[in-house]
Amino acid sequence: MFARLVSCAVLLSTVLQPVLAVWPAPKSYTKGNSVLYLHQNLQVTYNGEALTYTYGYSPRAPTSKEIVQAAVSRALGTILNEEKFVPWMLLNRGQLKNFEPDVHKGQKWLSSLKIVQTAEDKPSAFKPLAGEVDESYKLTIGTDGDIKLTAASSVGILRGLETFTQLFFMHSSGTFWYTPFAPLSIEDAPKFPHRGVLLDTSRHWFPVSDIKRTIDAMAWNKLNRLHIHVTDSQSWPLEIPAMPELAQKGAYTPSQIYTTADLDEIQRYGVYRGVEVYLEIDMPSHIGSVAESHPELIVAYDAHPYHWYCAQPPCGAFKLNNTGVDKFLDTLFADLMPRVAPYSAYFHTGGDELNANDSMLDEGIRSNRSEVLQPLLQKFVDKLHQRVRNGGLTPLTWEEIPLDWNVTIGKDTVVQTWLGAPSVKKLTRMGHKVIDSNYNFWYLDCGRGQWLNFANGAAFRTFYPFNDWCGPTKSWRLIYSHDPTAGLTEAEAALVLGGEVAVWTETIDPQTLDSIIWPRASAAVEVLWSGRTDPATGQNRSMIEAQPRLVEWRERMVNRGIRAAAITQQWCSMADDNKGTACEHVV
Amino acid sequence: MFARLVSCAVLLSTVLQPVLAVWPAPKSYTKGNSVLYLHQNLQVTYNGEALTYTYGYSPRAPTSKEIVQAAVSRALGTILNEEKFVPWMLLNRGQLKNFEPDVHKGQKWLSSLKIVQTAEDKPSAFKPLAGEVDESYKLTIGTDGDIKLTAASSVGILRGLETFTQLFFMHSSGTFWYTPFAPLSIEDAPKFPHRGVLLDTSRHWFPVSDIKRTIDAMAWNKLNRLHIHVTDSQSWPLEIPAMPELAQKGAYTPSQIYTTADLDEIQRYGVYRGVEVYLEIDMPSHIGSVAESHPELIVAYDAHPYHWYCAQPPCGAFKLNNTGVDKFLDTLFADLMPRVAPYSAYFHTGGDELNANDSMLDEGIRSNRSEVLQPLLQKFVDKLHQRVRNGGLTPLTWEEIPLDWNVTIGKDTVVQTWLGAPSVKKLTRMGHKVIDSNYNFWYLDCGRGQWLNFANGAAFRTFYPFNDWCGPTKSWRLIYSHDPTAGLTEAEAALVLGGEVAVWTETIDPQTLDSIIWPRASAAVEVLWSGRTDPATGQNRSMIEAQPRLVEWRERMVNRGIRAAAITQQWCSMADDNKGTACEHVV
Repeated sequence: MFARLVSCAVLLSTVLQPVLAVWPAPKSYTKGNSVLYLHQNLQVTYNGEALTYTYGYSPRAPTSKEIVQAAVSRALGTILNEEKFVPWMLLNRGQLKNFEPDVHKGQKWLSSLKIVQTAEDKPSAFKPLAGEVDESYKLTIGTDGDIKLTAASSVGILRGLETFTQLFFMHSSGTFWYTPFAPLSIEDAPKFPHRGVLLDTSRHWFPVSDIKRTIDAMAWNKLNRLHIHVTDSQSWPLEIPAMPELAQKGAYTPSQIYTTADLDEIQRYGVYRGVEVYLEIDMPSHIGSVAESHPELIVAYDAHPYHWYCAQPPCGAFKLNNTGVDKFLDTLFADLMPRVAPYSAYFHTGGDELNANDSMLDEGIRSNRSEVLQPLLQKFVDKLHQRVRNGGLTPLTWEEIPLDWNVTIGKDTVVQTWLGAPSVKKLTRMGHKVIDSNYNFWYLDCGRGQWLNFANGAAFRTFYPFNDWCGPTKSWRLIYSHDPTAGLTEAEAALVLGGEVAVWTETIDPQTLDSIIWPRASAAVEVLWSGRTDPATGQNRSMIEAQPRLVEWRERMVNRGIRAAAITQQWCSMADDNKGTACEHVV
Repeated sequence: MFARLVSCAVLLSTVLQPVLAVWPAPKSYTKGNSVLYLHQNLQVTYNGEALTYTYGYSPRAPTSKEIVQAAVSRALGTILNEEKFVPWMLLNRGQLKNFEPDVHKGQKWLSSLKIVQTAEDKPSAFKPLAGEVDESYKLTIGTDGDIKLTAASSVGILRGLETFTQLFFMHSSGTFWYTPFAPLSIEDAPKFPHRGVLLDTSRHWFPVSDIKRTIDAMAWNKLNRLHIHVTDSQSWPLEIPAMPELAQKGAYTPSQIYTTADLDEIQRYGVYRGVEVYLEIDMPSHIGSVAESHPELIVAYDAHPYHWYCAQPPCGAFKLNNTGVDKFLDTLFADLMPRVAPYSAYFHTGGDELNANDSMLDEGIRSNRSEVLQPLLQKFVDKLHQRVRNGGLTPLTWEEIPLDWNVTIGKDTVVQTWLGAPSVKKLTRMGHKVIDSNYNFWYLDCGRGQWLNFANGAAFRTFYPFNDWCGPTKSWRLIYSHDPTAGLTEAEAALVLGGEVAVWTETIDPQTLDSIIWPRASAAVEVLWSGRTDPATGQNRSMIEAQPRLVEWRERMVNRGIRAAAITQQWCSMADDNKGTACEHVV
């Protein structure tokens, strides 16, 4: 009885204590209950020097100071001008007035933001390999109104500023912004250095504005890699000045081409936000669209029945033993590498789902036997990866190249897995670096149903009820449950650089992009930044604890202009002041 | 070989023949290949009298002429100002120029649109019971430039004008609009009189603008019923002037209330578009939000564990044997019925998922035995439906009332089923009129994953991988395969008034509303308007034939401002000039 009374009293006194809802969860923090207000004249310094900022300030060059200056401008603009977050939907009906500070009492103001970068950025900070840039930061807010943000790199400062934006609420009067968490001290660093989103721009094309908005949201989420699967058999939307016919004939339409200026703009936009944008040109399969301009290089383009030759229409693969292909790739990489190298350390060479039957149609091979194809593929990959290295970049490949085809690859090469934990285990055992995109957890396109057509009769009956190959939908709860290093030894786990959620776009286009990615990619972020395990308990993180923070984070993203999907009933987040238990199912 | 040559020749000559892609498919039509251009000075007459129209013309009163006048204004505005549909994405790369007419050759212009309404509208035309209004129409376009639209009712004319808007393309020059289908003759009529969308505004609230946009898209699709599930245990967003405390305390927040003016605006907006908006106030279960203002009327509000008392948190049901409830409902219906009656013939009284355990907590009952509860429920429903009838409306109920509780209901009462074909069979056998919303086909919210929370341990393990109860996602192909009258005798089928797709909003809010509904509701429309069977073949309609039309229709809706989801790769709709076979899977 006594215990019960005590817990009730605790409940009463804590019911309107705000949750520090930073997403992804920081490594460690302490917080108080004092309220501090933010005003537009915050004094900002960078390494002791006054840093002027205006809303909408854009960096002029990728220097540390310019990047930090623009990030400060964005952070304050987000809080004061864009997000304007009044958290009524996180509180019980009518409780906002008990949550908000009394603005008529004397306000204590935040006075200064002192940013200290403790080391100079190496050039690699702006296009790092995994682990090359230190993203950690320390953020403190004193009750005296001083904010200190310290990091070893400008990227760490960017990460800290994103955390900073999540500490503030707007008062419902619309004229005050406050944080209720002072004094606050946060120490933070990511668990995995590679935290990405894969976006397929070949099955459907996305305007530059959509990609930039996605980069913005990625930066808010401390994601740091945008992997653009830019070409596939469906279309070739990438301008290659040395071979303009590729996009002229291979894009769906002239208005759906990324020009060299577009690509530069996208990559540069990413650099300024700590998001490295890298390209994939998938090959030797998934390259059919080249046949629109260079039919002599491709086998099985739109061959039927497609499932004899590839995973989905239209088929199309490079001829594996063809000097024309070599010349084509020499030209392609000579054109492309110098343009992407200033902004990215990686180039993804594809390599998934090569179907041996394609080479049955290749007049230079006429075989689908591994003994014939494997040596040809080894040579193809050797030359391909060397072209990447010659451009100063590091190759990425899909897992099938080493695992299914036993192709020997360099130890520099990073392998992206999609088929799951057994692949990660095998590859790390072999000593390969791995990025995990387990389709059972992190394919965001799954569960939308078939996009193929089935005629009445046998096809209709066989494929009824028309589920897609990788359904059901991966909910944030499932995404959040996935640990890319589960079942690995410590040495193996050390080779897992991180992971990517994937947005394959068979049935996704600009109308639905935001709600497909957000907030589900955020669930993966917390695994990749904070870890599946909660260091405080040593146990897996709990969705009871996570949901209130994700609900808040999703609301903030919506206020910032992202059409993120709802993850629970509004009642659930309001009924218990969003503690995650109102809609808990207790077995 | 000869056959092959012939088919090739046919292919060549027909490759750029446009498809008459009207969605839903009209009952019958004949078309030619002549091009006619549309200009802004089309002479429009209504029953022989000149009909002036300006873009954005809104009806001043719900009279036949005003409604037609506004519909003409919308139809021409859609084609010329809003949709501006250039169909390059339905054609092979670069083929648009071969599809479009040569605007430099002499153009033949459409000169007149003669609208003839052959009968006077009865008052019920603007708030019909199923079958009370004749929605059929006849539309012809002569090569002389005369358009004739004939219908028995103004609603039929509205339907014909929606078809009309789907006949036009904009020339890529941006200055010409044309139809390539003259001479054209369409005769059309719906198979089912009740074609609806159910929108739940209690779990998440939707602004009036979202609802109006949804009504617009429904009208384009020839849907004619918007069923607003306006209250539930989660929230009460409906202003009731006689009991203002209901919304003041039951809405999530004061900004999420439909005022009396909002409701009037929404219903009136529907009338002008041939969409009857009717309300559901679900009871005796799903009514917990009343406890926020009238706790003495409700049992089990937010009772735990919720699954002992209801299907999802928060629980909450009316006390079944309580004079306070009777008085409350008398007041509620006296307030609400006169306000909705001018615009709708129906009122939905709910009745789903009543859990007998609720009455264990009711101090006036203290039982969960059917023998005790059934007579109380019979009385409750008798009085409830009588209140609806007294208001001049016809009651609707969920299937559990007659089927699970053996409650006797009036023959006027329409029963909405959600549990599938066996329910439809039983109810029509009993002689009841039925609206079908089979959750295995027509629940648009399914397949998004759990919104409940599960703690680590037993709950996590039991519910992993966190699928929702009715997944997977119902794709348009599955939705399209559903025939509400399958397995019924002719007499039974005659009692099926139609169906509704359902948007329960546990994880749906304004961010995703459009892409949840569209174009999947369109797939249901074609079943409900045109029938699952193609009269031309006597066979089930084929998705091969339907997909190109649905792709085109989705593109038109997107151009009109609806965030409809993509249903296939862009390559598939382009590769064979959108004939539906490029991405056919042949077994």
